[in-house]
Amino acid sequence: MSKSYTVAVVGATGAVGTQMIKMLEESTILPIKKVKLLSSIRSAGKVLQYKGQDVVVEELTEDSFGDVDIALFSAGGSVSAKYAPYAVKSGAVVVDNTSHFRMNENAPLVVPEVNAHALDSHKGIIACPNCSTIQMMVALEPIRRDYGLKRIIVSTYQAVSGAGAKAIQETMDQLGQVVNDGVNPADLKAEILPCSGDKKHYPIAFNALPQIDVFTDNDYTYEEMKMTNETKKIMEDASIQVSATCVRIPVITGHSESVYIETEKVADIEDVKEAIGSFPGAVLEDDTNNQIYPQAVNAAGKKETFVGRLRKDLDVENGIHMWVVSDNLLKGAAWNSVQIAETLYERDLVRATEELVFDLI
Amino acid sequence: MSKSYTVAVVGATGAVGTQMIKMLEESTILPIKKVKLLSSIRSAGKVLQYKGQDVVVEELTEDSFGDVDIALFSAGGSVSAKYAPYAVKSGAVVVDNTSHFRMNENAPLVVPEVNAHALDSHKGIIACPNCSTIQMMVALEPIRRDYGLKRIIVSTYQAVSGAGAKAIQETMDQLGQVVNDGVNPADLKAEILPCSGDKKHYPIAFNALPQIDVFTDNDYTYEEMKMTNETKKIMEDASIQVSATCVRIPVITGHSESVYIETEKVADIEDVKEAIGSFPGAVLEDDTNNQIYPQAVNAAGKKETFVGRLRKDLDVENGIHMWVVSDNLLKGAAWNSVQIAETLYERDLVRATEELVFDLI
Repeated sequence: MSKSYTVAVVGATGAVGTQMIKMLEESTILPIKKVKLLSSIRSAGKVLQYKGQDVVVEELTEDSFGDVDIALFSAGGSVSAKYAPYAVKSGAVVVDNTSHFRMNENAPLVVPEVNAHALDSHKGIIACPNCSTIQMMVALEPIRRDYGLKRIIVSTYQAVSGAGAKAIQETMDQLGQVVNDGVNPADLKAEILPCSGDKKHYPIAFNALPQIDVFTDNDYTYEEMKMTNETKKIMEDASIQVSATCVRIPVITGHSESVYIETEKVADIEDVKEAIGSFPGAVLEDDTNNQIYPQAVNAAGKKETFVGRLRKDLDVENGIHMWVVSDNLLKGAAWNSVQIAETLYERDLVRATEELVFDLI
Repeated sequence: MSKSYTVAVVGATGAVGTQMIKMLEESTILPIKKVKLLSSIRSAGKVLQYKGQDVVVEELTEDSFGDVDIALFSAGGSVSAKYAPYAVKSGAVVVDNTSHFRMNENAPLVVPEVNAHALDSHKGIIACPNCSTIQMMVALEPIRRDYGLKRIIVSTYQAVSGAGAKAIQETMDQLGQVVNDGVNPADLKAEILPCSGDKKHYPIAFNALPQIDVFTDNDYTYEEMKMTNETKKIMEDASIQVSATCVRIPVITGHSESVYIETEKVADIEDVKEAIGSFPGAVLEDDTNNQIYPQAVNAAGKKETFVGRLRKDLDVENGIHMWVVSDNLLKGAAWNSVQIAETLYERDLVRATEELVFDLI
């Protein structure tokens, strides 16, 4: 494993892509020879920095990956659908941060602390789960291992940065109008949130929007169904019951989650705290006497998932409530993707795929 | 019932007191002869308006209630503990918006649409439930009546106005510092939230704080235990299981709640929607095809409770999820209090109590 690698970032100028570059800079594990930054023609030619050096962003094409060993994708599902198979065909391993390949049976869906073993059978594309799923998996895996997991009910408090740079700008603009100009929040104009691809848009400033992504036929949103379906795949147990309510709130960075679970075996809450506190990537912040609990403003910029407010349900013997917070752009996206790349390297899995199982479109 | 009444507002200059005056102005039911505004000596002498007339705020004393028929209290639990019994002794009926008398067996705890009958046996003091409980009761009572209610799991998204005028000011100041001066939210100074009576204070701007009120011995907060205990009392069923996670978010007006329930009988979701839509005080806002769901910015200033995102749990046959929003200062406090006064009048219950069952302290 003395080789060193060329790593491509597809969508390098976006909210997540920018953080991917930073996470590659901070990686102490991955031997990186060169970073190649790719984007649509619109952003090509921009100059970004990697470890203090200028790197010119290049236009993404089917031929971009000839010299690439690892390609991190975060430029939207349609870009991954089209270009990730070409990257694999060129001999690269793809870590895709979009939802496009997550439920594809040929693509492992990986949170390294939870199911790194799923990487072993990869066929060129590894999917990075949805931000809201990842942090919940880090919090719940130590509990699942010790006590089993029957069901999850989760309500999220999600940051706007998950909807991209334009959503951040819209939020700051709206807050400024209310704080500085006394505009009534109900009168604010909106063009992006709750979901740029949907018909209507609503203000996020001084509001809580119970819609993330568009609605599916069962009246749950895609975001909510991601939490359900991805949990079952990552934990390799279709019997785990998961129902989610996903809500956007006026926070820029850091998703918070109110999570209720029922375990197979009844758990002692102090043992649960210990299991979480000793799990890689999880940090226990739980001391009600001293008002210690996870907060979005403290999680921003950190790679860990913070867990607190752990307590038994008041009536259900195997029920546990908790509060889970993480930086949605880092562990929720860029860091989990780079961590997958590091784990591929550590397991000697950075290699060209013999047979292409993904469609070239 | 041709009499007309003198109505006192105790805590007239506060966030809720101001709204109580407005709700009295808007009442089409209560025959009001005179409004008497009371406060601590600090605010006495201030001039407020009632129906366009100046009213001078008077200092609250034990002797303030000689001419008062109905006294609305919202000046903190200790003020109610001390002065409400004197008001009753003077012949007034008290509607108390603080938590002090809520679990007192001699004080009915009333949401008029849900349990107006509990007023019939009042002994001079009627308690108005906690804001987060009231709106949940309006949403769930129509379901309880038709299908029975076994359990509730609720996660709240609560507005800062519930913590008073200083908390509103702190929130706006913090938002201004971030939006205008680029201060990092983690570096904001806080002096009020999450709870003015607790030791530590944290920023609310760009944050979600999983603490409202102080913690109890079981690691739930008082706010969370209010939702548990008040629900059982209002619905007159100690067997209903309620566990809450109460969270403050950077919204000024309008509490939102992600509510999961399990009913006794399995319910058809369209029938549930119809039951909610035809329940007094509840408004159904539920059309995912057209992105219609309750929002805090739209509920602000309205008296109703808005319910939407109604859907069956993905696995549990008798499980239902929903999103419940209401103006925490109106239905959550001032309007529910005035509505109790209206209902006392309609039921001919505005009368002096023969025997004083509350302690004079």
